[in-house]
Amino acid sequence: MTLIGIDVGGTTMKAAIVAGATTVAAESWTTDQNDPVGGILDFAARLAARAEELTGSPAAAAGIALPGIVDEPTGTAVHSANLGWRNVPILRLATERLGIPVAIGHDVRTGGLGEASLGAGRGADDFLFVAIGTGIAAALILRGTPYPGALGWSGEIGHIVVRPDGEPCACGNHGCLETYASAAAISRRHTLLAARAATPASSSPVPAEQVIALAASGDEHATTVWNEALDCLADGLASATLLLDPGLIVIGGGLAQAGAALLDPLASRLADRLTFRSPPPLLPSELGDQAGVRGATLLAARLPQD
Amino acid sequence: MTLIGIDVGGTTMKAAIVAGATTVAAESWTTDQNDPVGGILDFAARLAARAEELTGSPAAAAGIALPGIVDEPTGTAVHSANLGWRNVPILRLATERLGIPVAIGHDVRTGGLGEASLGAGRGADDFLFVAIGTGIAAALILRGTPYPGALGWSGEIGHIVVRPDGEPCACGNHGCLETYASAAAISRRHTLLAARAATPASSSPVPAEQVIALAASGDEHATTVWNEALDCLADGLASATLLLDPGLIVIGGGLAQAGAALLDPLASRLADRLTFRSPPPLLPSELGDQAGVRGATLLAARLPQD
Repeated sequence: MTLIGIDVGGTTMKAAIVAGATTVAAESWTTDQNDPVGGILDFAARLAARAEELTGSPAAAAGIALPGIVDEPTGTAVHSANLGWRNVPILRLATERLGIPVAIGHDVRTGGLGEASLGAGRGADDFLFVAIGTGIAAALILRGTPYPGALGWSGEIGHIVVRPDGEPCACGNHGCLETYASAAAISRRHTLLAARAATPASSSPVPAEQVIALAASGDEHATTVWNEALDCLADGLASATLLLDPGLIVIGGGLAQAGAALLDPLASRLADRLTFRSPPPLLPSELGDQAGVRGATLLAARLPQD
Repeated sequence: MTLIGIDVGGTTMKAAIVAGATTVAAESWTTDQNDPVGGILDFAARLAARAEELTGSPAAAAGIALPGIVDEPTGTAVHSANLGWRNVPILRLATERLGIPVAIGHDVRTGGLGEASLGAGRGADDFLFVAIGTGIAAALILRGTPYPGALGWSGEIGHIVVRPDGEPCACGNHGCLETYASAAAISRRHTLLAARAATPASSSPVPAEQVIALAASGDEHATTVWNEALDCLADGLASATLLLDPGLIVIGGGLAQAGAALLDPLASRLADRLTFRSPPPLLPSELGDQAGVRGATLLAARLPQD
């Protein structure tokens, strides 16, 4: 059975065509900033044609992972600040366009589903998947399945306040986790600190992975920023652990590429904060930037077939 | 069908004998501090005899709600700091003693089950039940059922850090929610503040409900303590809402008796903190101090009968 999985991001759409356990093709398209919904439907149609071309039979179903607020049962893309849509009936539109069953998922929850079935969460029924990239968000995998919450808003760990009266966040609050510990925040905070100190590095912003490398080599500003990010991440994960008691925490998103430089100090800080219980193990994502695409193919596979 | 529900607290055990929807008897016994397990078994046996006496037929099943860490599937009372036990096979012991099916539950989760089926959570599939008393703990009701977490440790909202580097907590950490906002903390913090200011009230500790009343009448120290408690509670509930997206928050425990004096300022503070989403409604517990007992009878009712 041939299935299509699409992961829609703010700048790029990634996709896979799978037949059974084999990935037949991996594709990507630029997200259409002016007409993102039209772009998704065109990409999906192109993938359906390509699936038939490659496998000789039409795709049986498609799964589409979307950013923002997603109401999975009704298949509605409720809101995306990045892509500027509101209440788009994307499930209906894609079903009409493709003529096959379609499933819609929230991007991080779909990535969590991918890790649950095919990645680092394979052995765990109950775990937390935390994606650290431009922002920070989580998927709650409970009893093997992503839990959306009452209204599809669960997992907003990036907006947990870890520094009361701290730095302003784009959300309007202060001291949110993602203002200290997202990849974007780490880069921005380092640039600001270096500029304030008027060091030679001040003129050129460096990405988060380079801040981490600078911290490892003893750079003072980078160490300050990176330690604060680790402390804030540990604070947020401690709160999530106390509330949810996950059996495992899987760290994904771009920052997870830092590997042991992230996971080792984070694990020890998390253990320090959990005074009366053992910490859940921390593992890196196994699927990396393919978690959402793989999860989307699983959404398609779970659909009842005609 | 006659059922027994028991809610074991640190000082008192409460129980109900129900026949269908009718509560036939409500009883309470002092918790045996020297032999709490023996005391529970004796109380359960007395209730079984009383059930037969009152209804003419033996009790069909019993449910027992316990404090501390409870592993519901194996029926083990893993740990209670208050009652000093470790890994007590209470399900087996009670089943042997009573000769009828027995179910074991965590006290706050069992209270949440009571509210879910018979109380303020009747209309909600997904909600958070927060018990504010000597400590603060929560039950996550997901899809109508209490969610224990991977290891039975979920719901420890009282130990979420709301004031980094804040007051020391008995758990060994600093700034935990329950060091600012439990009924015990409110009383203690008011006494300390009054003593430091050497006001006439300094010699006599007042309970939390009186601190709330003093704050309402404009007392300076009481207002300081109560506002801080409300701010911390709103911080903790905001974090839980962002992570879990509950459809409703039900507030129980002794502090809930403050009614609107607690819920109105708490709801407005919670809304202030949730900048990009609407807050879930806050409702007071309907079952009050009977939530655990009623939940325990539901644990019994869910058991398969011989």
